[in-house]
Amino acid sequence: MTALEAVFWSAGMSRAELAEQTGFSRSKANTAASSLIARGMLDETGPQASSGGRRPETLTLSSSMGLLAGIDLGASSVDVALFSPDMTTLAHHAEPIEVSDGPGIVLSRVREILADLRQRCGVRSEQVIGIGMGVPGPVEFERGLLVAPPIMPGWEGFSIRDYLGEEYRAPVFIDNDVNVMAMGEMWRLHRELPNFLVVKIGTGIGCGIVCNHTIYRGANGSAGDVGHICVDPAGERCHCGNQGCVEVMAAGPAIARMGTEAAKAGKSAVLAQVLETQGRIRPEDVGQASRGGDVAANAIIKLSGKLIGQMLASVVNFFNPSHVFLCGGISHIGPLFLASIRQSIYQRSLPLSTRHLEIAYAPLGDRAGVIGCAAMALQETMRVRGVLP
Amino acid sequence: MTALEAVFWSAGMSRAELAEQTGFSRSKANTAASSLIARGMLDETGPQASSGGRRPETLTLSSSMGLLAGIDLGASSVDVALFSPDMTTLAHHAEPIEVSDGPGIVLSRVREILADLRQRCGVRSEQVIGIGMGVPGPVEFERGLLVAPPIMPGWEGFSIRDYLGEEYRAPVFIDNDVNVMAMGEMWRLHRELPNFLVVKIGTGIGCGIVCNHTIYRGANGSAGDVGHICVDPAGERCHCGNQGCVEVMAAGPAIARMGTEAAKAGKSAVLAQVLETQGRIRPEDVGQASRGGDVAANAIIKLSGKLIGQMLASVVNFFNPSHVFLCGGISHIGPLFLASIRQSIYQRSLPLSTRHLEIAYAPLGDRAGVIGCAAMALQETMRVRGVLP
Repeated sequence: MTALEAVFWSAGMSRAELAEQTGFSRSKANTAASSLIARGMLDETGPQASSGGRRPETLTLSSSMGLLAGIDLGASSVDVALFSPDMTTLAHHAEPIEVSDGPGIVLSRVREILADLRQRCGVRSEQVIGIGMGVPGPVEFERGLLVAPPIMPGWEGFSIRDYLGEEYRAPVFIDNDVNVMAMGEMWRLHRELPNFLVVKIGTGIGCGIVCNHTIYRGANGSAGDVGHICVDPAGERCHCGNQGCVEVMAAGPAIARMGTEAAKAGKSAVLAQVLETQGRIRPEDVGQASRGGDVAANAIIKLSGKLIGQMLASVVNFFNPSHVFLCGGISHIGPLFLASIRQSIYQRSLPLSTRHLEIAYAPLGDRAGVIGCAAMALQETMRVRGVLP
Repeated sequence: MTALEAVFWSAGMSRAELAEQTGFSRSKANTAASSLIARGMLDETGPQASSGGRRPETLTLSSSMGLLAGIDLGASSVDVALFSPDMTTLAHHAEPIEVSDGPGIVLSRVREILADLRQRCGVRSEQVIGIGMGVPGPVEFERGLLVAPPIMPGWEGFSIRDYLGEEYRAPVFIDNDVNVMAMGEMWRLHRELPNFLVVKIGTGIGCGIVCNHTIYRGANGSAGDVGHICVDPAGERCHCGNQGCVEVMAAGPAIARMGTEAAKAGKSAVLAQVLETQGRIRPEDVGQASRGGDVAANAIIKLSGKLIGQMLASVVNFFNPSHVFLCGGISHIGPLFLASIRQSIYQRSLPLSTRHLEIAYAPLGDRAGVIGCAAMALQETMRVRGVLP
């Protein structure tokens, strides 16, 4: 690992830690640090307050390098932030947005938000050195283009790079929403776990794969597209044309549909009441009914968790990750959900695969996406510049 | 890539090719080659005959380094060979063996075979510099131990390393049967494909994973254990305790069982005849009946291929490999089998995952295992010695 890489993956480190992480001698680490400071790539801050008294000088990526922009676009929201190279958030804004409105409307709003955030920080567009964006659809990473995105009509072939390039000189990197979350979690973990998964459960179901300390995108960039893994060959028909995809059987819309059916069939007084009042049932209504002890709602959430766990069991058998981190709006629908996913994975995976497997909520939660966008932008920008391998 | 790595992955290369592969200048490549020749790690052979006339001098790993032993143990056979460091086969022997007889009987026979092969080549045990072994069960790679191997009772916790260490000073590396096949195919491909799968279909079903040009073993070494992925939640009960595992529904024993049922139910005159003559039906009998046009046998083989394809579709959606190579005794059971697997994968995977996907027989076939054992032994031995990263 190079000295710059070591500092990139840390939240700041002393020269002694740098030597340890890189395997360099103290004097070689000192030379490397001094050279990077002279080149304007590292800053050395003064002693930091800590519980253990005076902390040694701390190396971070230099703020003189410029800023990073992260844009995490979801199906119905966008999360934009500016970061310094040490990944401190400088300005942040989130708002609802409909990705189905198409790239023209969505990206012009993104540009407005970015300009507003820059103004708040007093920085010009030239000071942004890298832009990372996460999108809720399949991406060809090298070309930065969406490929047949099911919930993003009008985006296929649209060059987000060219559009943002009108205002920014910085390179633009685009990846799907779960890969940027995986990148965010990898950055948070200081790249300590070599092999883990980040599974996002919302309107759809997707998976970010970390393999040997890097985001694994597969031969065509579609690795992690687990939403259409079959969990019941005789199950419901999915919009993809096949039957029994985990997404159509267990994601947000399926939970809402099952809730509506339970309400109409007189199986849940609570949900029947919601249906009458609101005219429809949302996944979160089922979650709330479940937390209130509603038997039908409990059964729906357990079934959804069981099916997702069944899909994840296949993935765990194949990939044998150390951790499976869950995120996305549906993942927090209630305590039974996580328990049911866990039970299903442990039941259907081989003992050797699950002996040390941890299944937990993604620690960064909703913030993982936008942090991952910025971390990806920084890593890829430094690669383009030839300073990171 | 280091110069030694480049030569390791080639079947011999000129100094010009070495410069190209490593990205070194011609003079730096020359210096590296000369230094490795001086250290006894590379040989430079004379001009080779080729269709294009005189070929430049060729660099190969030096035979003065010693020999590699490959031991590919299957459920009912063993394949042992000695190789020079450029992976030329020096001596080879295969014979039937029952892995269920336990490590004492099996390994004493392996030692005899190894001694016999050495004698044929006139080499002493000290000249063997690395031993690689593939076994049909889950392996903890670092410790070289089998972990709860379903078809290898008596092998759990048995130290193959210590046993072979009584006669050989060389380090012993053990991996499962499909990982060594994947290693063999990666060596054959000169490490050109970064992400592919090798799927072995026989009595069981397993998968070797090549990810970013390396064998991916997962967090506990169990990556690729795809035999217990569920293809039908209401399907037959497997010895693992779950229902509908692809192995119990579609591997060799399932094909034999379905063939027996067809014979008994009067659905196949051909298979009924086999059952009467032999007293039982083997998978290859179903294959032969299918090649003869037997309708029931065709249906069995198509169903098996369909279920395996369904499991592989999940894996392809998740992993997005460029190639899926099929091997193992059952994979050649008949032309309908491969066609059925292909159809099932293409139908159940997303278009982006299959756009460039190739599904084919493993090019090295049965030889992949023993070649992979030796390639693994060489790579790991050179890593232990600190000459490969």
